[in-house]
Amino acid sequence: MSTLQDGTASQDAYSRLLELRASIDNLDSAVVHLLAERFKCTQQVGRLKAAHGMPAVDPDREAVQIRRLRSLAEQARLDPEFAEKFLNFIIDEVVRNHRSL
Amino acid sequence: MSTLQDGTASQDAYSRLLELRASIDNLDSAVVHLLAERFKCTQQVGRLKAAHGMPAVDPDREAVQIRRLRSLAEQARLDPEFAEKFLNFIIDEVVRNHRSL
Repeated sequence: MSTLQDGTASQDAYSRLLELRASIDNLDSAVVHLLAERFKCTQQVGRLKAAHGMPAVDPDREAVQIRRLRSLAEQARLDPEFAEKFLNFIIDEVVRNHRSL
Repeated sequence: MSTLQDGTASQDAYSRLLELRASIDNLDSAVVHLLAERFKCTQQVGRLKAAHGMPAVDPDREAVQIRRLRSLAEQARLDPEFAEKFLNFIIDEVVRNHRSL
C-alpha cells in the first residue's frame, strides 16, 4: 500500500472514530438526563415511604426489577449480567442518597 | 384520624408508589436500550482501533468525556460526582469487553 493510500485509510478511520465518539456522546447525554429523571422519581419514593411508614427496602420489588431488566437486556443484545450490575450500581446510589437525607 | 381515613391515605400512597415505580421501570427500559446502542458504538470503536493500530486507551478523550458529563449532570441537577462514577463504571465494562474479544 502506498503512503498516500495509508494516509487516506488512516484519515477515513479517524473520521469514523470521531463519528462514533459523537454518537457515544449523544447517547451519554440522553442517559444522564434519564438518570436525572430517575433520581427525581426515587426521591419522591423515598419521601412517600418515609411519610407513610413504608419499609425503605423492598427485596421483592428489587427481584422483579432485576428479572425484568435482564430480560430486556437480552432482547436488546446487552449482556444481562451487565444490566444487573448496572441496576445494582444505581440502587446503591439511591440508598446512599436516602441515607444522606 | 379514623381507620377509614388512614386506610384511604395508605391506599393513595400505595397507588402513588406504584405510579412512581412504573415511571422508574420506563426510564430503566430506556436506559438499557441506550446502553445497548452505546456498546454497539464502542465495539465498532474497538474494531476500528485494532484494525488501524490506534491506541486502545485515550486519556485525553476520557478527560473530555468526564468534563462534559459533569457539566451536563449539573444542568440536569444530577450529582456530577455520580455522573463521573457512572461514566467510569461504563468505561470499565467497555475495557472488560475489549479484553474478552
